[in-house]
Amino acid sequence: MREVAVIGIGMTEFGELWQKSFRELVAEAGVKAILDAGIEGEDIDAMYIGGMSTGRFIGQEHVGSLALEVAGLEDLHIPATRVEAACASGGVAMHQGYIAVASGMYDIVVVGGAEKMTDVVGGEATNILASAADREWESFFGATFPGLYALMARYHMHHHGTTQEQLAMVAVKNHHNGSLNPKAQFRREISVEDVLNSPIVAEPLHLLDCSPITDGAAAAILAPVDIARKYTDKIIKIKASVQACDTLSFHSRSRFDSLPAAVHAAKKAYEMAGVKPSDIDVAEVHDCFTIAEIIAIEDLGFVEKGKGGKATEEGLTALDGQIPVNTSGGLKAKGHPVGATGVAQINEIVMQLRGEADKRQVKGATIGLTHNVGGSGGTAVVHILEAI
Amino acid sequence: MREVAVIGIGMTEFGELWQKSFRELVAEAGVKAILDAGIEGEDIDAMYIGGMSTGRFIGQEHVGSLALEVAGLEDLHIPATRVEAACASGGVAMHQGYIAVASGMYDIVVVGGAEKMTDVVGGEATNILASAADREWESFFGATFPGLYALMARYHMHHHGTTQEQLAMVAVKNHHNGSLNPKAQFRREISVEDVLNSPIVAEPLHLLDCSPITDGAAAAILAPVDIARKYTDKIIKIKASVQACDTLSFHSRSRFDSLPAAVHAAKKAYEMAGVKPSDIDVAEVHDCFTIAEIIAIEDLGFVEKGKGGKATEEGLTALDGQIPVNTSGGLKAKGHPVGATGVAQINEIVMQLRGEADKRQVKGATIGLTHNVGGSGGTAVVHILEAI
Repeated sequence: MREVAVIGIGMTEFGELWQKSFRELVAEAGVKAILDAGIEGEDIDAMYIGGMSTGRFIGQEHVGSLALEVAGLEDLHIPATRVEAACASGGVAMHQGYIAVASGMYDIVVVGGAEKMTDVVGGEATNILASAADREWESFFGATFPGLYALMARYHMHHHGTTQEQLAMVAVKNHHNGSLNPKAQFRREISVEDVLNSPIVAEPLHLLDCSPITDGAAAAILAPVDIARKYTDKIIKIKASVQACDTLSFHSRSRFDSLPAAVHAAKKAYEMAGVKPSDIDVAEVHDCFTIAEIIAIEDLGFVEKGKGGKATEEGLTALDGQIPVNTSGGLKAKGHPVGATGVAQINEIVMQLRGEADKRQVKGATIGLTHNVGGSGGTAVVHILEAI
Repeated sequence: MREVAVIGIGMTEFGELWQKSFRELVAEAGVKAILDAGIEGEDIDAMYIGGMSTGRFIGQEHVGSLALEVAGLEDLHIPATRVEAACASGGVAMHQGYIAVASGMYDIVVVGGAEKMTDVVGGEATNILASAADREWESFFGATFPGLYALMARYHMHHHGTTQEQLAMVAVKNHHNGSLNPKAQFRREISVEDVLNSPIVAEPLHLLDCSPITDGAAAAILAPVDIARKYTDKIIKIKASVQACDTLSFHSRSRFDSLPAAVHAAKKAYEMAGVKPSDIDVAEVHDCFTIAEIIAIEDLGFVEKGKGGKATEEGLTALDGQIPVNTSGGLKAKGHPVGATGVAQINEIVMQLRGEADKRQVKGATIGLTHNVGGSGGTAVVHILEAI
């Protein structure tokens, strides 16, 4: 199998984008990535697009074909494939794009992710998102994602002594990072008190422990490393791309303070890349709720199981910490257009490894990691990237 | 890239299966395919599952993870990926599975397709299916799939002299074949008069010109040819696997009496397989409406453009004809659980090439083809298989 590189990135602003349609978001992210890579439309051999519930958010399935039409490349008749794995749809699109290029099947592949979530009324978005859990055995009985992650938080607090203040510190850190990211949905600082004083959504999670409902799209251009130099000098190599799955239902999971699929994906990714957790300079992890980031940094081996809250409190994951996490603002502050998130994470890490992250730049970052999760851990995707 | 074979197949009965849930359908098809291949669950490296609108039909996204849990293989933490391309979701799942094995990324891959369409009320299924067309520019203004294919039929009748009777003959043939298939939704013969006397759905298409709303699932096991013999002697090689796309919207298409994506996919598939249309012994094509089969046999090069109606009338595509088409009964009589269809087509061709098709066996069939279409032609997937 061939070595694969990211040679271009692009994304829209994230937020409540009332003035932009799904197809406009797809077009904007895709065009930016194509321009960034210096390729022509005719160079593209295939497209993969992640979308979680386009059928319910905008009444549109078959968004692979839509993406091809939006790109104006219909006469090429190249394959354009939608993949779906709930909030890991973008990460899975990256993994399928990686396989397609590594295999030799295709050379230049566009990977995209998009979701337009604000076109449905109030609580309907939470109901749609609950279709990422087990509909028959969880959602029907009232379980929502804030509820499922609240169970993880309670378990973590009980067994490991994690505090509400430590959870809040994840949000405070990510809002600080978001304030430095012009594309983030929330660009204002918040305090621990703000989080603890915000309304309870599902105890112990407050409103400011939760990622928001967001519109947005992101794209990345993949190419074999040996062809990449034809187009650009800004080559970021994909050292590892691993997708792992687990039970759909949270209640069937073997443990509640960890996502075994993420642990498995991380372990395989480190092996594939030949690196250790301590080699990672910067990481984007799936902080759909504050507890999710604490569990993620443990599952990824940055800290021991149970020490994630304490490590956050001590600044390990801050922008100037030992391993900066969610420099983009994460899902919490940058926003979480579910199908786009996995590809947006790749955008941030590529910017960091190119040294283009401006005020949130991690100095000397050469190896970065992304961690994208679907549902309560039914799917996890880990990528490790390196500047070469 | 490695040569890939289908080493196992399985499918449920197709029909209005009130007593079976989506997950039961997935389990049944998967287990049958695993038993057929003679593999163990632990041998499986990855899964791909096609589903068109599970979010709207059953309120469940993230069905890759669901399939892994249903299979009881969560402890393997293998990747299980849903792909979606409207009614071509099953064909696209096959193509992604093919790439995954051919690449060397994975050895044993389970490909599945499933849809549970009868759990929604009456007209809602047609509305959900319309999400495979362009929601903003077609469906919002009242276009349904019977309407879009009726436009193709009108165009074909006007320009090529195709008659309503010839359209009806497609349904008559496919119902005859369906009467020989114990898994078909409709197992009774119908006459040309039955079709012409059935209610108009979208002129000139009558009810019996249309494929039905169906529940069902199908699966296939893929492996590299050189590993396949470890498990089975019944090896069917995939000589070609090609996915092509086009505009989502029908009105943007370059012509109305052909699906350019299907023409493109077929051309590339013939090249990849090193065969001509006249080498194909048996084919399953995407007859979502009778006109679709006529256009398909032209697009695949079995007959010249415009001659599909006449060829059907003359028996070219009958079970005892020169190139038997839709021996399973096709989408029309076997049924059309949209996400499953592409994989069900593979099931039929594998049975034919193994000589296991019983009363509908095409004698001496060694090369078979499948043609799976999404929407009004936004996606097309062509596979060519050969008994070795």
